[in-house]
Amino acid sequence: MTTSGLTIALDGMGGDHGPETTIGGAEIASIRHPAVRFLIFGDEAVMRPVLDKYPRVAAVSEIVHTPVAIAMDDKPSQALRRGRKTSSMWLAIDAVKTGRAQAALSAGNTGALMAMAKVILKTMPNVERPALAALWPTARGESVVLDLGATIGPDAIQLVQFAVMGEAFARIIFGLERPSVGLLNIGEEEVKGTEQVKEAAQMLREAGLPMQFHGFVEGDDISKGTVDVVVTDGYTGNIALKTAEGTVRLIIEFLREALRSSLMSRIGYIFAQGAFKALSKKLDPRASNGAVFLGLNGLVVKSHGGTDAEGFAYAIDVAIDVAAADLVQKIVADMALLDGFKPSAAQASHSTTEPSEAALS
Amino acid sequence: MTTSGLTIALDGMGGDHGPETTIGGAEIASIRHPAVRFLIFGDEAVMRPVLDKYPRVAAVSEIVHTPVAIAMDDKPSQALRRGRKTSSMWLAIDAVKTGRAQAALSAGNTGALMAMAKVILKTMPNVERPALAALWPTARGESVVLDLGATIGPDAIQLVQFAVMGEAFARIIFGLERPSVGLLNIGEEEVKGTEQVKEAAQMLREAGLPMQFHGFVEGDDISKGTVDVVVTDGYTGNIALKTAEGTVRLIIEFLREALRSSLMSRIGYIFAQGAFKALSKKLDPRASNGAVFLGLNGLVVKSHGGTDAEGFAYAIDVAIDVAAADLVQKIVADMALLDGFKPSAAQASHSTTEPSEAALS
Repeated sequence: MTTSGLTIALDGMGGDHGPETTIGGAEIASIRHPAVRFLIFGDEAVMRPVLDKYPRVAAVSEIVHTPVAIAMDDKPSQALRRGRKTSSMWLAIDAVKTGRAQAALSAGNTGALMAMAKVILKTMPNVERPALAALWPTARGESVVLDLGATIGPDAIQLVQFAVMGEAFARIIFGLERPSVGLLNIGEEEVKGTEQVKEAAQMLREAGLPMQFHGFVEGDDISKGTVDVVVTDGYTGNIALKTAEGTVRLIIEFLREALRSSLMSRIGYIFAQGAFKALSKKLDPRASNGAVFLGLNGLVVKSHGGTDAEGFAYAIDVAIDVAAADLVQKIVADMALLDGFKPSAAQASHSTTEPSEAALS
Repeated sequence: MTTSGLTIALDGMGGDHGPETTIGGAEIASIRHPAVRFLIFGDEAVMRPVLDKYPRVAAVSEIVHTPVAIAMDDKPSQALRRGRKTSSMWLAIDAVKTGRAQAALSAGNTGALMAMAKVILKTMPNVERPALAALWPTARGESVVLDLGATIGPDAIQLVQFAVMGEAFARIIFGLERPSVGLLNIGEEEVKGTEQVKEAAQMLREAGLPMQFHGFVEGDDISKGTVDVVVTDGYTGNIALKTAEGTVRLIIEFLREALRSSLMSRIGYIFAQGAFKALSKKLDPRASNGAVFLGLNGLVVKSHGGTDAEGFAYAIDVAIDVAAADLVQKIVADMALLDGFKPSAAQASHSTTEPSEAALS
């Protein structure tokens, strides 16, 4: 896996903190990946002075002036109207389409990014709807969780497609040959859950895919690290992610309060400072920054809007990793295994007959 | 709110640890609620020796011998076949129906409890499907979250019914006059989310109910305590709850590891022990034990299966609180506000016209 010759398109205007974060992040990423080049899309008058402060990234970057910036609160439809072919976000994605860059990265408005990515790059063969995948810290390290909000209400076939895409992503990002895959549900028994997850589980069991399908997993299995890839719909995945983030913040707040509550606990804090630093590093959301849109004909990575330069650099790392490993072509190849799967699956969803062997081969 | 004259029916056999937990829990609860009586359903040969060890609860309890115990891994259909009219679980719920008890409490198999409760007690007028509601610790104290797994795939009207029931529960359990109510979604904008939550939000905005409807909330709003009542479907609610529980366990594990990692941090731990005890008390899942089935013609409370006597006692407290406040009658009265709401809502779900004022009045 080589990074030489790779170019990453950056939406320089996206995110809560603008170019100090995006260009500052690229500076940090350049230390780890000196061979990678950047195309930075944004208002040149804003970008140039910041870039001048960071000589390392300046040496490997080109600024492309864009007159429009998408606001964090623009609705996707507004963004498409206002920013089509003129905004830093649109043009960063377009650079992937035209081959000038191998991946685009934005810390901007998620809904707008998703809408533009779909319009510009389109979904790949055998993929009906894209999914947003990211890494989730677990007791065993990290797992891939998808979809985190790209597709609301996917049907069973689309969940199967998510499973295949997520598995490919995990192979690359974790360097695993056969990552295990689980479907998020409210129990491990086959009778529980929505019709879509029950059907998707049946298909994954019977599809004969070269996949280590674990079956159903529950909410607490995510942080246990029971499987390498957790598959769910975008509504549930987004709520699970934000619920977990909220829980982390609440516990940190409880911990702070407890440690401030007495002189003894303050003294204890001084002694155990190293441990608390290690803990907060483990819980640092910046280290899991960088969610990837899977299923499009090109790579688009989403950074948290509120992150800083260090967090944005982690998202650049993700963009570089998936671009260097040619994730899109790997997913296209995997999705070919689902050729002819659709009619059979559609049949399965309307009757109780099992998908025929022929249709799946 | 008086507890004198109240009787709570206990499924003595339910839970991972049997009568030591259920009767031991009743002993603890009896200290706080000396006027409350217990009907304990279970195998007399097993129950009697345990009850003899706890004189306080023995003085206010009667054992009802039941030959069958529902296993934790029985499927709901099996449980209904095997345990109908003979099991401790069935007969504890039946005692509520016949008026011998004002609430039933079980730490047994959730699916079986749900199925039996529905068969025995039936849903109340204007409620199509029941919901499981419980308390969730937040930065502001606690919030009610429902549904945690009773109803998969509720439609918009059923979500509205959950909102009304959850609001009544919060009024009683928190002593609030007008608790705020939010619908769980993946964004605060009206355009986001499933059709069901969008329709439910529209109905709640336009229904003219005496409810402080906040609108949409996201996953991280639960632990922020943004609203007093968080409404969602049973699939999403169950996954959010278990994801949060898993996150708490993961962070505690990370914290333990960090504190063990050096001599300095171990010394720090000794000084700050009081703070850690306060923290673990705040995160103690036992203190939020006791989920209530809402929407049935009688009160059934579910305790965590793995809890101990102290945790079971908290669930008994919940059962006593809702029984003493006559929660069922309060919900019946609130649900009457939804009279005539159904046809209008059904219309809204099939067209873009808004529910007419007349239909809602």
